[in-house]
Amino acid sequence: MITTKTPKESLTILTDMVLPAETNALDNLFGGEILARMDRASSIAAQRHSRRIVVTASVNHVAFTKAVPVGSVVTVEAKVSRAFKSSMEIFVDVWIEDRESQERTMVNEGIYTFVAVDRTGTPVKVPQIKPETDLEKERYEGALRRKQLSLVLSGKMNPDDAVELKKLFFKKQ
Amino acid sequence: MITTKTPKESLTILTDMVLPAETNALDNLFGGEILARMDRASSIAAQRHSRRIVVTASVNHVAFTKAVPVGSVVTVEAKVSRAFKSSMEIFVDVWIEDRESQERTMVNEGIYTFVAVDRTGTPVKVPQIKPETDLEKERYEGALRRKQLSLVLSGKMNPDDAVELKKLFFKKQ
Amino acid sequence: MITTKTPKESLTILTDMVLPAETNALDNLFGGEILARMDRASSIAAQRHSRRIVVTASVNHVAFTKAVPVGSVVTVEAKVSRAFKSSMEIFVDVWIEDRESQERTMVNEGIYTFVAVDRTGTPVKVPQIKPETDLEKERYEGALRRKQLSLVLSGKMNPDDAVELKKLFFKKQ
Amino acid sequence: MITTKTPKESLTILTDMVLPAETNALDNLFGGEILARMDRASSIAAQRHSRRIVVTASVNHVAFTKAVPVGSVVTVEAKVSRAFKSSMEIFVDVWIEDRESQERTMVNEGIYTFVAVDRTGTPVKVPQIKPETDLEKERYEGALRRKQLSLVLSGKMNPDDAVELKKLFFKKQ
Amino acid sequence: MITTKTPKESLTILTDMVLPAETNALDNLFGGEILARMDRASSIAAQRHSRRIVVTASVNHVAFTKAVPVGSVVTVEAKVSRAFKSSMEIFVDVWIEDRESQERTMVNEGIYTFVAVDRTGTPVKVPQIKPETDLEKERYEGALRRKQLSLVLSGKMNPDDAVELKKLFFKKQ
Amino acid sequence: MITTKTPKESLTILTDMVLPAETNALDNLFGGEILARMDRASSIAAQRHSRRIVVTASVNHVAFTKAVPVGSVVTVEAKVSRAFKSSMEIFVDVWIEDRESQERTMVNEGIYTFVAVDRTGTPVKVPQIKPETDLEKERYEGALRRKQLSLVLSGKMNPDDAVELKKLFFKKQ
Repeated sequence: MITTKTPKESLTILTDMVLPAETNALDNLFGGEILARMDRASSIAAQRHSRRIVVTASVNHVAFTKAVPVGSVVTVEAKVSRAFKSSMEIFVDVWIEDRESQERTMVNEGIYTFVAVDRTGTPVKVPQIKPETDLEKERYEGALRRKQLSLVLSGKMNPDDAVELKKLFFKKQ
Repeated sequence: MITTKTPKESLTILTDMVLPAETNALDNLFGGEILARMDRASSIAAQRHSRRIVVTASVNHVAFTKAVPVGSVVTVEAKVSRAFKSSMEIFVDVWIEDRESQERTMVNEGIYTFVAVDRTGTPVKVPQIKPETDLEKERYEGALRRKQLSLVLSGKMNPDDAVELKKLFFKKQ
Repeated sequence: MITTKTPKESLTILTDMVLPAETNALDNLFGGEILARMDRASSIAAQRHSRRIVVTASVNHVAFTKAVPVGSVVTVEAKVSRAFKSSMEIFVDVWIEDRESQERTMVNEGIYTFVAVDRTGTPVKVPQIKPETDLEKERYEGALRRKQLSLVLSGKMNPDDAVELKKLFFKKQ
Repeated sequence: MITTKTPKESLTILTDMVLPAETNALDNLFGGEILARMDRASSIAAQRHSRRIVVTASVNHVAFTKAVPVGSVVTVEAKVSRAFKSSMEIFVDVWIEDRESQERTMVNEGIYTFVAVDRTGTPVKVPQIKPETDLEKERYEGALRRKQLSLVLSGKMNPDDAVELKKLFFKKQ
Repeated sequence: MITTKTPKESLTILTDMVLPAETNALDNLFGGEILARMDRASSIAAQRHSRRIVVTASVNHVAFTKAVPVGSVVTVEAKVSRAFKSSMEIFVDVWIEDRESQERTMVNEGIYTFVAVDRTGTPVKVPQIKPETDLEKERYEGALRRKQLSLVLSGKMNPDDAVELKKLFFKKQ
Repeated sequence: MITTKTPKESLTILTDMVLPAETNALDNLFGGEILARMDRASSIAAQRHSRRIVVTASVNHVAFTKAVPVGSVVTVEAKVSRAFKSSMEIFVDVWIEDRESQERTMVNEGIYTFVAVDRTGTPVKVPQIKPETDLEKERYEGALRRKQLSLVLSGKMNPDDAVELKKLFFKKQ
């Protein structure tokens, strides 16, 4: 079994249009519909990395920086940023493109966590990640901090033990 | 104009079934479909609080603690937990119930942020929140900390200025 | 086994938006889409009352009194009004609310009948209903008359035997 | 303008499959999904008769006599049974067919009422109906009785004035 | 077992509206949505002819001659035009009608091929077709030529052996 | 304005899962649903090439070589193969991948034609194509032959004038 893979190997691209069906009072795509597409793309990325059935464990953070108007072409790109024992953190970037200029604008960035399981739903081990580009390395580093933050916020880790996370607040000292 | 409202006034309940259309390889509801329902319920709660058009600003955190099998009755309950200038934090709790025992199990908890806007998409002021129950007070308190965390993580606030957030790491001292 | 329950125990609320996907040439929600939401809410109410699998037996009457424009928040409220041997009559009220005034307007009222069945589809006994409010009592009383009307119209009951129903025509005498 | 048309001229046939997306715990089509298909077919029949925009006014009665299993071919047939000033009563028959024997079984029969309106939503006059077959004549006769029943049940007509309806209870005398 | 059937016996009509959900930047129905409806109607026609499970083998040609505006009533009519050993060619005609004049315009014509299979997916024999009308006879004749064209284009037949097809190019000589 | 572009510049990838909603009696994806996804991906490719609104003109040929089981990850890849005056031919390849081996299998190949139009629906000129890879060159060459075939089959071109097409039958001589 391969024990280390690159983020690139799990890259998943979902390009699709915004149909009028899923737009709000301002004729923009509903946030919930974007979240669902991001979830589908990142679950495929997690499956490509682990070669296993995967289930959504958490959505760590999604920021909606720009509205997505009806008729847009939306590209969702998902890649595993770090793997732990049986869980994987996936970064999902969402872009729209202008029909005439073909210029791309990032509208959205999300971080999802998936767990690989067997047919009975029991977590199984997954290959580790070896980041290649600078952005991949930065996201790989941040993943541990985000995991600690999740554990602290849900009361499963003592804040004093969140070594990586605390550096965020003391790094200037 | 009313300038203070209670969380209860924005309570939004969306009870619906899990249809076979949206289930994964383990016959459980897709995470993305739950995220979309949570977004719709919390946007109605934000609209009820602000009486304005609202747009999703961010999903702060959603943890999937339990799978939702096909055929389940899913109840999504959303309530505004705190209002800032034009943004509102909404807590969304998701429950399933057992058909025979009618016992309710929480499967999911999410925190969404919405912004109230006018027809041109410009942010507008919203009423403030006065929490009533203990849980509402606890969520109200935590909202400021979560807002600072969002700003720190996105590089828009210096960690040293995140007063409420830092208490999380020093409260035991 | 509990043999009597109140209507309140089966109350099911389905609040959701009207998406542009399901609107007609006047930009109002299609009647058929409202009927489907009412069926889902009332089937959950019937399941909550009976704790059994339930199937739609009939739609007794649905009156569309007001159009539901795109963008509306629609609240469907379903409650068991009376239980017979294995069938249950459910009243479904549908409301829209004005975003700015938050005023609620009833747009629709329907009466559905469900039958509780086991895994093989065979009807099973359900708990009886004890109405509490005046409206619940009025609907409880009317249920028998409506059941007789169904039987007469489908040729399964002799009009002379429809005692409760005939009172409707002779009550002024 | 043509002032009389036959039911046949409005006949609308909607044949489609039952997809797994819309099935319940017994693998049968949800009642609500059938109601929505019936509404779409009968609104087309009403539009073909009136050549106008039409809106659902009421669902008079729908009886579900047989379950519709997943994979079935469902045929919905709608025809105007009687026209009043601006409203039309439509009969909708629903059939499934057995793949191997090609035998047709009626699973459902519903009666819908639509109103023809102009672009502002104001009711407009529609052509009258001249029934041809025996079944069409029987349905034409019953329509007036059903209209009176609707008016009595909604408190808009005094039961004593419902001449046609009362005959139902006295016809054996 | 019946070994010959007429095209009429498989006639399948799917009349439905164009909902705003599936329209493009010009407010016309997406080509893909029409293709899906044509596939569903023609698969029912193939099933009615063969009384078997059927799977789409190919779409031979679909020409979109006219846009389908939102709000249109679309009628899809599918009929088996010729049967081979286990495959069937189906002609699908698509019409829209004008609400006011009720005039029908053909917008689309497609040719699909389906294969009848058993539960394991193995092809099974189907009844032959006996065309009745002139149009049915013309389509029956052309089916062999189209089959040869498919085989030539996919490299499964030597062009020299495509006797019927070659006549297309030499018939004037 | 750029007058020549490469096929690569229009490459559009739509990766998504097969949901249970769209599967037939053998638990495989409906042909019609694949056709709709292919249409959406190829319309984006045509839009990327032309930077214009595009409408489906025809589906030249789609062969379904392999069933797509529920739960599959389906990748649709579309690229412009040749541009004419205002029309573009797009090749769409459809792949599924095995979760465990990650092996890709082509299940489907289709050829769509789109026309670029302005806001009034009038055809407008599009950039020409300069193929780069061997496969792109082969598809580029074949496009003219397929266009002639379309014209001959629809009676818009005399078979004798279809120079490129006739070579198909005489190339061995």
